[in-house]
Amino acid sequence: MGLKVNGLDDLDLQILDILINDSRTPFLEISRQCHVSGGTIHVRMKKMEDMNIIKGTKLLIDPVKLGYDVCCFIGVYLDKAKDFKTVVEQLSLIKEIVELHYTTGEYALFLKIICKNINDLQNLLMNRIQAIDGVQRTDTFVSLFQPIDRNIELNIRNHPDE
Amino acid sequence: MGLKVNGLDDLDLQILDILINDSRTPFLEISRQCHVSGGTIHVRMKKMEDMNIIKGTKLLIDPVKLGYDVCCFIGVYLDKAKDFKTVVEQLSLIKEIVELHYTTGEYALFLKIICKNINDLQNLLMNRIQAIDGVQRTDTFVSLFQPIDRNIELNIRNHPDE
Amino acid sequence: MGLKVNGLDDLDLQILDILINDSRTPFLEISRQCHVSGGTIHVRMKKMEDMNIIKGTKLLIDPVKLGYDVCCFIGVYLDKAKDFKTVVEQLSLIKEIVELHYTTGEYALFLKIICKNINDLQNLLMNRIQAIDGVQRTDTFVSLFQPIDRNIELNIRNHPDE
Amino acid sequence: MGLKVNGLDDLDLQILDILINDSRTPFLEISRQCHVSGGTIHVRMKKMEDMNIIKGTKLLIDPVKLGYDVCCFIGVYLDKAKDFKTVVEQLSLIKEIVELHYTTGEYALFLKIICKNINDLQNLLMNRIQAIDGVQRTDTFVSLFQPIDRNIELNIRNHPDE
Amino acid sequence: MGLKVNGLDDLDLQILDILINDSRTPFLEISRQCHVSGGTIHVRMKKMEDMNIIKGTKLLIDPVKLGYDVCCFIGVYLDKAKDFKTVVEQLSLIKEIVELHYTTGEYALFLKIICKNINDLQNLLMNRIQAIDGVQRTDTFVSLFQPIDRNIELNIRNHPDE
Amino acid sequence: MGLKVNGLDDLDLQILDILINDSRTPFLEISRQCHVSGGTIHVRMKKMEDMNIIKGTKLLIDPVKLGYDVCCFIGVYLDKAKDFKTVVEQLSLIKEIVELHYTTGEYALFLKIICKNINDLQNLLMNRIQAIDGVQRTDTFVSLFQPIDRNIELNIRNHPDE
Amino acid sequence: MGLKVNGLDDLDLQILDILINDSRTPFLEISRQCHVSGGTIHVRMKKMEDMNIIKGTKLLIDPVKLGYDVCCFIGVYLDKAKDFKTVVEQLSLIKEIVELHYTTGEYALFLKIICKNINDLQNLLMNRIQAIDGVQRTDTFVSLFQPIDRNIELNIRNHPDE
Amino acid sequence: MGLKVNGLDDLDLQILDILINDSRTPFLEISRQCHVSGGTIHVRMKKMEDMNIIKGTKLLIDPVKLGYDVCCFIGVYLDKAKDFKTVVEQLSLIKEIVELHYTTGEYALFLKIICKNINDLQNLLMNRIQAIDGVQRTDTFVSLFQPIDRNIELNIRNHPDE
Repeated sequence: MGLKVNGLDDLDLQILDILINDSRTPFLEISRQCHVSGGTIHVRMKKMEDMNIIKGTKLLIDPVKLGYDVCCFIGVYLDKAKDFKTVVEQLSLIKEIVELHYTTGEYALFLKIICKNINDLQNLLMNRIQAIDGVQRTDTFVSLFQPIDRNIELNIRNHPDE
Repeated sequence: MGLKVNGLDDLDLQILDILINDSRTPFLEISRQCHVSGGTIHVRMKKMEDMNIIKGTKLLIDPVKLGYDVCCFIGVYLDKAKDFKTVVEQLSLIKEIVELHYTTGEYALFLKIICKNINDLQNLLMNRIQAIDGVQRTDTFVSLFQPIDRNIELNIRNHPDE
Repeated sequence: MGLKVNGLDDLDLQILDILINDSRTPFLEISRQCHVSGGTIHVRMKKMEDMNIIKGTKLLIDPVKLGYDVCCFIGVYLDKAKDFKTVVEQLSLIKEIVELHYTTGEYALFLKIICKNINDLQNLLMNRIQAIDGVQRTDTFVSLFQPIDRNIELNIRNHPDE
Repeated sequence: MGLKVNGLDDLDLQILDILINDSRTPFLEISRQCHVSGGTIHVRMKKMEDMNIIKGTKLLIDPVKLGYDVCCFIGVYLDKAKDFKTVVEQLSLIKEIVELHYTTGEYALFLKIICKNINDLQNLLMNRIQAIDGVQRTDTFVSLFQPIDRNIELNIRNHPDE
Repeated sequence: MGLKVNGLDDLDLQILDILINDSRTPFLEISRQCHVSGGTIHVRMKKMEDMNIIKGTKLLIDPVKLGYDVCCFIGVYLDKAKDFKTVVEQLSLIKEIVELHYTTGEYALFLKIICKNINDLQNLLMNRIQAIDGVQRTDTFVSLFQPIDRNIELNIRNHPDE
Repeated sequence: MGLKVNGLDDLDLQILDILINDSRTPFLEISRQCHVSGGTIHVRMKKMEDMNIIKGTKLLIDPVKLGYDVCCFIGVYLDKAKDFKTVVEQLSLIKEIVELHYTTGEYALFLKIICKNINDLQNLLMNRIQAIDGVQRTDTFVSLFQPIDRNIELNIRNHPDE
Repeated sequence: MGLKVNGLDDLDLQILDILINDSRTPFLEISRQCHVSGGTIHVRMKKMEDMNIIKGTKLLIDPVKLGYDVCCFIGVYLDKAKDFKTVVEQLSLIKEIVELHYTTGEYALFLKIICKNINDLQNLLMNRIQAIDGVQRTDTFVSLFQPIDRNIELNIRNHPDE
Repeated sequence: MGLKVNGLDDLDLQILDILINDSRTPFLEISRQCHVSGGTIHVRMKKMEDMNIIKGTKLLIDPVKLGYDVCCFIGVYLDKAKDFKTVVEQLSLIKEIVELHYTTGEYALFLKIICKNINDLQNLLMNRIQAIDGVQRTDTFVSLFQPIDRNIELNIRNHPDE
């Protein structure tokens, strides 16, 4: 049985499913698959964007091919747990930080970083991240290999055209 | 100064930059911004797809809005480090695992998981992940809050239209 | 503003609140405070018991006064994470274990134990818990002092009699 | 053989045992089971309350049914171990903390928390617990599943009515 | 006020105190200090030896002066916690192990070792301790300096001669 | 072959061996076993005391029989490693600390403590040890059972009387 | 197939290989093996020194034979990660530190130390390393035995004379 | 005052000192500095080589310049501590391992590795080191920057020519 979400009907979920598989599918093709007019597709897309369910689109690129060789995770310890907010403000200025989580477990903050190489990582750690007031120490682990990198797969099923 | 990548010229990088900002930009608009024909855009896109620099597109959705409330990281310890491959095969069948890394540091494997709720997480850990032969123990930390979630920002600058 | 729970009205919550404060309050007194008949109280109690919201009552005793001096927490590591169920079955036979949790973090299982003294704890660990097949090791920390031990306080407010 | 406690005779222990099993047992029923008058029961109860062996009664409710979904343990590290007392004072104002222990092992303080959901936990950690002066960092582990939650079982045996 | 121990009177404690300070004090001198006959001293000593309060005497030597340069502590992890007894039997054959504790915390066993030098320690670890079936790994920390090494000081006071 | 120590001959080692086995052996008996005069024994003892090889004698008592039930090890972390000396001075005033080591590994200081009971330990930790300026945190592990407690056994062999 | 390095030809690599095997090989012998003049060898050596590929030569000595018995690794934690530079300046004055790394993982700095004995190590830790402002604590592990100590082996093959 | 080593006189130490500073110093130059004949230098060198004090010479190269970008340390945990010897045999076949230590602390073995890049490291860990029977898991930390890399500096002083 399919996924149920408040405020979404089967047509919404079907559109979502098509775009999750290929976000560049033309509206004409979506409308053909769903047996509704292009205008209806636009209305539904607009609704899901207004509900913030669809937050935008993203080109999938290979960072390594573009010279971004190193992906790593960094656990951050703070001098004082309550310095959280000012440290996050400073960290948000560092564009190599692609994720920042506040997690259970021993780290105050947990970062995912994509950068060019080991020298770039050294520079980021020594001159950018650890230079922030309130950062006590960091624990870095480098991703050597990433066999899985994918989206969550929604349980949206039984489409007319499939 | 802008980014230099082997085999890509300024036009390629400009196209990439436009699509990184909005992967749904119509080819007509790209060709207008770059002052070249739509055919040229298609040729360049094809080249970058063949080079595997562009790996596809992805709809950005809000997992929480779709009922996926829990994001967490799981460090996996194996009985024997060399069981790596068979365990990864089993893990790749679990669709809630959106990233799997082989990292330096104490974990054999490091997972990112998106699932519906705490019960879902319990089920995943007890009945799916820890049920795999070769998994010795896991260390889970739950993301309580994620103030940063973004793409790497390429240093592609000085576009004609900007 | 007060707590809202599916299937419960203000009278139910008022009864719950009175009994959370003193579970021995006679029904007569509850009915007086709530301005309804004793029969109504019985009906509502029965409903909340059937809904399993009220699971029973418990005498609060001082374990130390009865010779139970040692309270401790024990993190349990298993040989294999998947042995979870058979180990829990064995642990449930040990009456000194008053709580058993399956938690995130590094432990497979997390126990709370109340026992008579250090010798009793040694015996429990060496001859009962660690004797179970599948228990690899344990990490015990003894509570030396417990300044807080209390129930969650429900946000049930604005009672007629208060 | 039964439990021996200083200042308690067999009748006291028998009353205790009945009430541990069901704290709502009417005095009339207790007196019937013990073959003594209701007045005697009152005298003995009063004595055990004065000795602080009986500390009160507690309604057992299901926190999940009332919307309290998350149970977790939090190890607290302090800036300086000697700040213990002022931090405990601040923590005692947070009603979601149902247990606070001073334990052996690496944590300065060890808390048990019951709260509504992951957002509630995030708020508690970021804005309440870590905002306290003297708290250096915390280590949280979430209970995903709790198969055992029970009282210590006293070795009180050989009751006349059993 | 002085220490009270079941079965010991003030004379016993006074004798104990004199011998704790200097176990070679002649009985004649003890009897003089306590104003009782030498026979009484013998009777009391015999009683405390029978009660196993006095377990013997020990010459305090400087292990470093005799070529025993290295003092270290070793935490032992076992393959299975329940192998405890057979491992202890094997360890008890290693004379350099002067203390063996079963402790709370992460180690299954905790050893104190005195040996001649780093080579001796290497040999002990590699060829003796880690060669025992059931020992999974060890964690050694070397004492570099020991500013305190003393007996517990009993609160035995108000002696006639002091 | 026997132990060789600078400045000690076979007679010295033989005397040492006799006293290590029983520190109360009368000089007359030692002189009889060694076939030398009592005066020689006194001279040799004096020499070994002057060389600080013999540091004194110690009565072996059972701390548990005297009401000292709890033996534990405490790893101490300091605010700053260089505060070592002032902290040791303060710790040396606490008579329950029978050993203090400066060790490799993660602790700044490592203590062995013998005290009366869990309450005594709580008091020591909270009001004495953690109250010292410069102590950042402690990690305590309690000895539940100690099957080995003995002296190093010197390799002194081939005595005339044995 | 052999190693390829920018700016180096086969002759350079051949010279490098000969000197890596024996840095004292006379130039005459190198020139003979490579079938080129001694002048050519000098020119190439000079080039590789200018490129900083050859950084010098080193006599391999046995530190233990010269009284340097203890080799150990020390992980250093700093008060604040950003104090890195001033601490490294102080550490560089301690000649027993033969390597200093800035690493991923939990340590701010990671040192390799060669010193004379345990007393020397104690002195280094207590009076030199931990006395530096900004050093919070250290974690030392002693090398008990080192079966492998060698250079990287370059894949330089197919030399004319081999 | 200078270093004293058994079997070495001042001339030996002077020669050692010259060669430690520059292992390529011609014998003629050494003999000139020491005011002795070249033959004497040869004899002394031969003696120190026979005593294994001089173990050879080593060209100092910059591994990064030769494409060896990654230096890292790897702590190895074994299934069973006693498998040490067979694992070391296997590890010694991996030429990227330049140091292998048996250390105190939590690791069974501690390696220093120099390899070409992150991919090389991944391959080494997954296919070489963790593929060895008996290796349970590894903990890798990458050196991002190494400001100190030097020899121990012997205290050899007061040379005639300096």
